Amino acid sequence: MKVLIIGGVACGPKTAARLKRLCPDADITMIEKDKLVSYGSCGLPYYVEGVFPDIEELINTPAGVPRDAAFFDKTKGFKVLTQTEALSIDRKNKTVRVRYAQSGKEENSAYDKLVLATGGYSFRPPISGLDLKNVWFMTHPDHAESMKREIKAQGLKKAVLVGAGFINIEMAEALVRQGLDVTMIEMFDQIMPGVLDKDIAMFAAKHLKEKGVKLVLGEGVSGIEGKSSVEAVMTNKQRISADMVVVAVGTRPNDKLARDAGLMCMERGGIIVNAYGQTSDKDIYAGGDCALNHYMNGLMSGPLFVPLGSTANKHGRIIANHIAGLSTPFKGITCSGIVKAFAYAVGRTGIGEKQAKELGLDVETFTWAGPDMPHYMSESKPFIIKMIASRRDRKVIGVQLAGHSNCSKRLDVAASVISLGGTLDDLSDIDFGYAPPYSPPIDPIATCAQMLSNKLDGIAKGVCALEAKSLLDSGKAVFIDVRTSDEFETVTMPYENVIHIPLDELKKRVGELPKDKKILAYCKVSMRGYEAQRILNSLGFDNVRFIEGGIAGWPF
Amino acid sequence: MKVLIIGGVACGPKTAARLKRLCPDADITMIEKDKLVSYGSCGLPYYVEGVFPDIEELINTPAGVPRDAAFFDKTKGFKVLTQTEALSIDRKNKTVRVRYAQSGKEENSAYDKLVLATGGYSFRPPISGLDLKNVWFMTHPDHAESMKREIKAQGLKKAVLVGAGFINIEMAEALVRQGLDVTMIEMFDQIMPGVLDKDIAMFAAKHLKEKGVKLVLGEGVSGIEGKSSVEAVMTNKQRISADMVVVAVGTRPNDKLARDAGLMCMERGGIIVNAYGQTSDKDIYAGGDCALNHYMNGLMSGPLFVPLGSTANKHGRIIANHIAGLSTPFKGITCSGIVKAFAYAVGRTGIGEKQAKELGLDVETFTWAGPDMPHYMSESKPFIIKMIASRRDRKVIGVQLAGHSNCSKRLDVAASVISLGGTLDDLSDIDFGYAPPYSPPIDPIATCAQMLSNKLDGIAKGVCALEAKSLLDSGKAVFIDVRTSDEFETVTMPYENVIHIPLDELKKRVGELPKDKKILAYCKVSMRGYEAQRILNSLGFDNVRFIEGGIAGWPF
Repeated sequence: MKVLIIGGVACGPKTAARLKRLCPDADITMIEKDKLVSYGSCGLPYYVEGVFPDIEELINTPAGVPRDAAFFDKTKGFKVLTQTEALSIDRKNKTVRVRYAQSGKEENSAYDKLVLATGGYSFRPPISGLDLKNVWFMTHPDHAESMKREIKAQGLKKAVLVGAGFINIEMAEALVRQGLDVTMIEMFDQIMPGVLDKDIAMFAAKHLKEKGVKLVLGEGVSGIEGKSSVEAVMTNKQRISADMVVVAVGTRPNDKLARDAGLMCMERGGIIVNAYGQTSDKDIYAGGDCALNHYMNGLMSGPLFVPLGSTANKHGRIIANHIAGLSTPFKGITCSGIVKAFAYAVGRTGIGEKQAKELGLDVETFTWAGPDMPHYMSESKPFIIKMIASRRDRKVIGVQLAGHSNCSKRLDVAASVISLGGTLDDLSDIDFGYAPPYSPPIDPIATCAQMLSNKLDGIAKGVCALEAKSLLDSGKAVFIDVRTSDEFETVTMPYENVIHIPLDELKKRVGELPKDKKILAYCKVSMRGYEAQRILNSLGFDNVRFIEGGIAGWPF
Repeated sequence: MKVLIIGGVACGPKTAARLKRLCPDADITMIEKDKLVSYGSCGLPYYVEGVFPDIEELINTPAGVPRDAAFFDKTKGFKVLTQTEALSIDRKNKTVRVRYAQSGKEENSAYDKLVLATGGYSFRPPISGLDLKNVWFMTHPDHAESMKREIKAQGLKKAVLVGAGFINIEMAEALVRQGLDVTMIEMFDQIMPGVLDKDIAMFAAKHLKEKGVKLVLGEGVSGIEGKSSVEAVMTNKQRISADMVVVAVGTRPNDKLARDAGLMCMERGGIIVNAYGQTSDKDIYAGGDCALNHYMNGLMSGPLFVPLGSTANKHGRIIANHIAGLSTPFKGITCSGIVKAFAYAVGRTGIGEKQAKELGLDVETFTWAGPDMPHYMSESKPFIIKMIASRRDRKVIGVQLAGHSNCSKRLDVAASVISLGGTLDDLSDIDFGYAPPYSPPIDPIATCAQMLSNKLDGIAKGVCALEAKSLLDSGKAVFIDVRTSDEFETVTMPYENVIHIPLDELKKRVGELPKDKKILAYCKVSMRGYEAQRILNSLGFDNVRFIEGGIAGWPF
């Protein structure tokens, strides 16, 4: 069996290595137009940041051996041809036309099974100046290497990041840590659009600003200016001077070969595959960033383009299995993503609130804020969780998190529950490992699920911070702070007309509350705010809500 | 409705607070024979360690308010009577005989619903000397407070810990960090018996020893000696001098009230309850450490005694819900537990290998060892995962972990998958949040599931470290180290006759391998060991295994 794999970064080598283990007799060749294969491109920002000193680390195995053609031949048993480009596919004769860049020679390469792992490419926005010196995209070790070298050589000081997605958030941290002045521009009115709901994005953005990143939201970039090197970035509203620019406004699937060969692709890009990675031609597979995905549990039906190294590796395994005759259909993705942003982790899995509404799903949400350990543990740190559940069947359909803490733990738990179709009640009952260094007795993600259950059951009546602020601004509501006097004197919400009544005085001072306005109760994390809502309900106040997340979750 | 709750530490206050929120009109009284209620007893070792300076932290709310009778009355709306003991239950007349310790007065207290949250007590082993000065159990803030005070006042230097379970592992770290010489004695031949399989226990024990804890395994304590204060601990083999002792050899359910009242209990202890927390008397509930649990998915049928603060809180919620008329059956537990042991986290969830075999389950296991992030990240740290799955349906039934890393994340994911009945294939496909600071592209727990799948499919042929060592010792096997020469020179297995052939030379040097012995291949983490097994299989060597976990997972 002759297997030809086009593309050598993530899905390609994974397919080849797995297939060789399954079918030692298979004749496997992987071609790659670049000079490098199998590098860890997700590590590029960390090289710039200085987490590791040598770019070769991204190319070498953990044992320090370069993953080059000789390595794959000797240890994995398949052939690798670098600087070798696939020009076209002849499906009828089952050959691929390849060109060897160094010799300029072209020839036909035959296959029984063909795997397209051609990856993605950075979207180039239709603006001027992308080819100026000191403008970088960030997709290849050469980019990171040259950026780091040039920052030092030219003494670059002022970086503008175009786009506020995963890569540029990592780059913001990397460049701030390298001592640069960093401005991040995003055409939408929030960071991580399409990933986070606005409230969680605002909460995370607050942290970026605290760490010195200047955020310019809601402004489109119209051009990059400069004579030979970058001098400024123009938005529709202002000119921002800059001596370097990183453009990261999305990835597009590299589906040209497939499209030219008549394989089914989505009009807006991406190769359509089934759960085994097969394209519309059963002998041609596609995986990694060039291929589309499906959502795991049917809540979204169309193909999704979510390019990730983790998913690319899964595709490789699935494709190798199917070529080897094993039937292991890929269940799909739940659109999980996480990014480290200075001291915060920010992540999401499943479907967001905005997205759920666009899909016409009937959902309820809850936002929890609080510490990740019992308060007596000195390393306890705050974070925020927003959970989205279906009203109809109480299934958890999405979770977004941000904060100082071990968010990745709770994100992965949420991804597990969503993948397996768990409800809020299932999540509440999971027997999480409890010890004070790891969580409170009830893990925050379970507490969040319980509070969302309480909301669905009509017991807890919360409003999210955005709604609370808008009610306050409209004059229809008053804020009531139910913390102790000590706490109130230390910090409070920066608004007029906040009524302060400590929870333990609430019953006797209930006369101080207005009857004609909505009462919005809060405390540090709003557990006492919730308690206040219940107490006021029992005293006949019906128009009471508590502000979810309290002061700890306040994003303004 | 008059609700009486007996016991005020975890399940009791949770039941009362939740019930009051659900039923503001309920007349709720919680009685507690001690002077304190609602304290964080899991924090005791951390007070001794010095993580927080004031024992009051365990009694106060995060806002610094003591959780006393006045607090509960004013903010939660229920009555708390401390130093008030329940003497007996009159089920016919629905009253409880109570005694007020301070006045000595006794009276009958009526109830419509009664909740038993009487907790557990430390098992007192049948040995002499338990009442000597400087012998501590560790279940109440007074114990931690007096221990810390006496260590300083008396200048205590030499601690012996009797029992190697969760509490004493936490105490070992606390006391080492306080500068004491610490010896831990366990009658079984491993730490955390009944929690961990022996291989994982050995791996964790190695770390305790590295941190200076002297382990005495397989020796029963026969007595504690001393005139008035502790001078030594006697085992069946030796005398160990000591100036302080911590005894933590298990907790027993405090079911006396229930038993005396004729409620169904297990003979060996523990109140039997249904999924709503009801005892055999429908108006009497029991929760927390006095009550028994059931395993979540039917693999174990009998009642289980697993006393944990996390479960006690869940019981409180379930009981309050049922009293309030909400039907939210508790799904049960999966026997999860985690402990911080110096730089390691050590945990387990689900059913262990030994336990599975005792239950007659047909299982396969895989042990993975490796880094928790891509190798190029400077904070990458190693850990070990053992996964147990059912051969029949490929369901994940247990996971045990130990190591430097974020084990709690992977433990909670495993608990989620086990709770929801997920298979190895489900676990492989979960869309975990990937970024280099949080995991490799395929999370180790998914890699472990994939390797266990490979084993079930006959592709990967691994042996665990214990079996490898025993095969080596019997002379039936040779070890082959397939790492690079640089790696081999730095560190290798401390045994004779290790054959070193780097993986990339394996094909051409295959003649050097013996034909009459089992070949056991390994590398640092045994991914190359696995590769070597597949290469040798393809060259006609059938009697080849790889050592799961490699050098990183070697527990000897």
